[in-house]
Amino acid sequence: MDKNLTDFIVLHKTGKSPLYVQLYEEIVDKIKHKTLSPGYKLPPVRLLARELAINPGTVVSAYRELEKNGYIFTRRGSGSYVAERIVPAESEGQEVPDIAAELADDVQTDCGQDDVINMSSVSLNPDIISLEVLQKAIDDILKRDRGYAFTYQDSRGYMPLRQSIAAYLAQKGIMTDERSVQIISGAQQGIDIVARALLKHGDVVFVENPTYPGAIAAFRSCGAKIVDVKLTKEGIDLIDLENKLKLFKPRLMYVMPNIQNPTGISYSKCVKRRLMGLARYHDMYILEDDYIGGLYYGKNAPVPLKTYDTDDRVIYIRTLSKVFLPGLRLAYLIVPSALSQKLLNVKYIADIATSGLTQRIFDYYLREGLWQKHLNSIRNIYKIQFDFVMKMLKKYLPKDISYIKPAGGLSIWLSLPERLRADDIIRRAKEKGVIVSSGAPFFVHQALHRQVRISFAVLSLAQIKTGVKILAELMKNR
Amino acid sequence: MDKNLTDFIVLHKTGKSPLYVQLYEEIVDKIKHKTLSPGYKLPPVRLLARELAINPGTVVSAYRELEKNGYIFTRRGSGSYVAERIVPAESEGQEVPDIAAELADDVQTDCGQDDVINMSSVSLNPDIISLEVLQKAIDDILKRDRGYAFTYQDSRGYMPLRQSIAAYLAQKGIMTDERSVQIISGAQQGIDIVARALLKHGDVVFVENPTYPGAIAAFRSCGAKIVDVKLTKEGIDLIDLENKLKLFKPRLMYVMPNIQNPTGISYSKCVKRRLMGLARYHDMYILEDDYIGGLYYGKNAPVPLKTYDTDDRVIYIRTLSKVFLPGLRLAYLIVPSALSQKLLNVKYIADIATSGLTQRIFDYYLREGLWQKHLNSIRNIYKIQFDFVMKMLKKYLPKDISYIKPAGGLSIWLSLPERLRADDIIRRAKEKGVIVSSGAPFFVHQALHRQVRISFAVLSLAQIKTGVKILAELMKNR
Repeated sequence: MDKNLTDFIVLHKTGKSPLYVQLYEEIVDKIKHKTLSPGYKLPPVRLLARELAINPGTVVSAYRELEKNGYIFTRRGSGSYVAERIVPAESEGQEVPDIAAELADDVQTDCGQDDVINMSSVSLNPDIISLEVLQKAIDDILKRDRGYAFTYQDSRGYMPLRQSIAAYLAQKGIMTDERSVQIISGAQQGIDIVARALLKHGDVVFVENPTYPGAIAAFRSCGAKIVDVKLTKEGIDLIDLENKLKLFKPRLMYVMPNIQNPTGISYSKCVKRRLMGLARYHDMYILEDDYIGGLYYGKNAPVPLKTYDTDDRVIYIRTLSKVFLPGLRLAYLIVPSALSQKLLNVKYIADIATSGLTQRIFDYYLREGLWQKHLNSIRNIYKIQFDFVMKMLKKYLPKDISYIKPAGGLSIWLSLPERLRADDIIRRAKEKGVIVSSGAPFFVHQALHRQVRISFAVLSLAQIKTGVKILAELMKNR
Repeated sequence: MDKNLTDFIVLHKTGKSPLYVQLYEEIVDKIKHKTLSPGYKLPPVRLLARELAINPGTVVSAYRELEKNGYIFTRRGSGSYVAERIVPAESEGQEVPDIAAELADDVQTDCGQDDVINMSSVSLNPDIISLEVLQKAIDDILKRDRGYAFTYQDSRGYMPLRQSIAAYLAQKGIMTDERSVQIISGAQQGIDIVARALLKHGDVVFVENPTYPGAIAAFRSCGAKIVDVKLTKEGIDLIDLENKLKLFKPRLMYVMPNIQNPTGISYSKCVKRRLMGLARYHDMYILEDDYIGGLYYGKNAPVPLKTYDTDDRVIYIRTLSKVFLPGLRLAYLIVPSALSQKLLNVKYIADIATSGLTQRIFDYYLREGLWQKHLNSIRNIYKIQFDFVMKMLKKYLPKDISYIKPAGGLSIWLSLPERLRADDIIRRAKEKGVIVSSGAPFFVHQALHRQVRISFAVLSLAQIKTGVKILAELMKNR
């Protein structure tokens, strides 16, 4: 294997860039083209230096650069290995499931790659999370609970966390108590559990159109019939909804009333109230996915539909994935008491309980006031980027590209005019190093292929500007 | 209220245990007897110290111990509160789901309670896990991968971990590669995912009888028809199996061929081979749950059925919950290539991906050789307890109580004679402070109420002796 690597590498000793940069670039190239796959052990420094007839210091410098940029990692006393790097643009359909490949939302993205402008990822840039705080939280928890932090948890969730969540929500106007809190391993699990607990084969679910594809997949897997309802700028289209309620008797309606994914639309107060009235009249449950709760840019936090829920028919989901660390796999449900035991049973069948360590980390953040600090901090950071992206869109985009200004979140939903096709724009943008998400997977039945979602979650201001300018150029009227 | 607490508490300043221990025990006693109920706010340190005329440091120490053992929790700036504690013996049907309440297996247990001999828990005693090693693993991972350890993972799993698992299994005789490894959030999720991917409403699944109740629940939730097959001391009853294969066409058979849960039976080589032959002939998939793999007491590790799998029809599950830390929620599947994409899709719907931190911890253990060390260490510890429990059973139990000596694991399955009823023994044992598991929930359709499972996972040798003697006394012929 070591022999192979040196065979692949070509260095020009009289070339214009320093040898260590050449070596660095050669290895990056091999990693990107999968000649070296993740986990591959790089040859020891001295061996590689000898085989390439270069100074060991050159190899050390190259390896250091590789490590700094996340291409490799080093294990003390063992050696250097190729790290796992998944770039969405290159991994489609390979390591990601069929349905997942279509999801613009949740793919792992590679923020370290400077040559690509990733306007697809809607996950926070992990570099903005304070690792010191997280590390201290873990240390304190292990000191306090020792191995007990890793024992089986109650299927409903770690009680102190359920209490802190109830206390936290009370401050935000959602009056609940720990008995209504169900801890889950991410919002996707929450949607899946609700679907499995409520829906029988053939049952009808109403959804917004467009909506989150992971929800569509979960409802489909239960054999549910999915009926989509239009959206207006004010939220769900009440006329369309009332018409469809004459035709169908939905058991459940899945909505994102604040900063909807993908459109960014927020329901007006009036629409929220009217929706709750219809839900009551037609006796349907509402699944409210507050998917980006906490990341708003106005003065006041958007008000959850759950606060309008006078007769306990809203199941409220809130996740940490979009505003903290997706890899924690943590979210929670506020569950109507009539459904509580049913959901608990399905949660048990699904995975018994959510990780005790993860639950303790969030509990620690809530109790120490770190959670609110974290949200304030990301709001400040992303507000700047949000304002900037809005300015850039206004300045550069052709006037017939339409979008609404969302009240928060990390992305903007662009609607293209008849003269343009989204897949064409996406392909050409990719050729120019700009990755954007197709709107198509968000549509329930058929897409118009006129929508593109652009995100600024992992971009610098300079990248936002370049990205928008490249897109604007491609969208120009010629 | 504060006044009340001090009225209840009696400390002996000249007593033989330190004051803080006495205070600790007094408060624990009040919590156990519900004099102090969950959510009760304990008096501030200085106030309590003054009222009891003791040093504030003593109160701090007692509160710290209470917190460490989960009796109370502290909110910064607010005070200390009595936590809700779920002891399986007392909480049946309250905080645990319907189906979960019946599961002897996976309830959260309270190992700190010295007056109860818990012969029900089959989770490792968390105190035997080296926290220093675990802490260092987490530190090193955070240093290496920073926030990226918490980004979305590939739904199939973190690639380096999949590679380390493949390498580890190759040493154990299971030849596979990383493409066949599917990371899951615990064995229960694995069973559930396999059930959802393979079973349609009305499909037939074969299971051993008795078997793991969580599997029964998962199969039932898919609407599958569950057919149970008898067990003999040599493993699955081949005659019963062949007869039932004449009547049914199962899509899947769920088995634990080594150290079966709950019976402890291991299949003979001959039965393993014959089972694979029948699976091939009748074209059914086998789901092998190697639920306690690694914890054996003989010279050689039991050989998985998967090693007999010549035509890729065994789905192999291995979990860390039973031999490491259940709260990590980590397990893996080795998946036949024909099923790989299907399972991946269901995994995605279920929870997108398993926690990246957890996956990295296990990867670290495997790569650094810590995993094998850990298994060797727990084998050594539990071998002593296992030998001791076997000796005690032989010495004290009436001769008409039958059991087989398992090849490993943490429990023994006792079969009672006609003259005894299991529920009666269990109730009377509980009155004497010994908690054992009923065999009834492990039976698929109807139980004989003659089986009891006793475990030594969290007991000292002295507790084992006392527990067995109490049980033996209750089982005596009178």
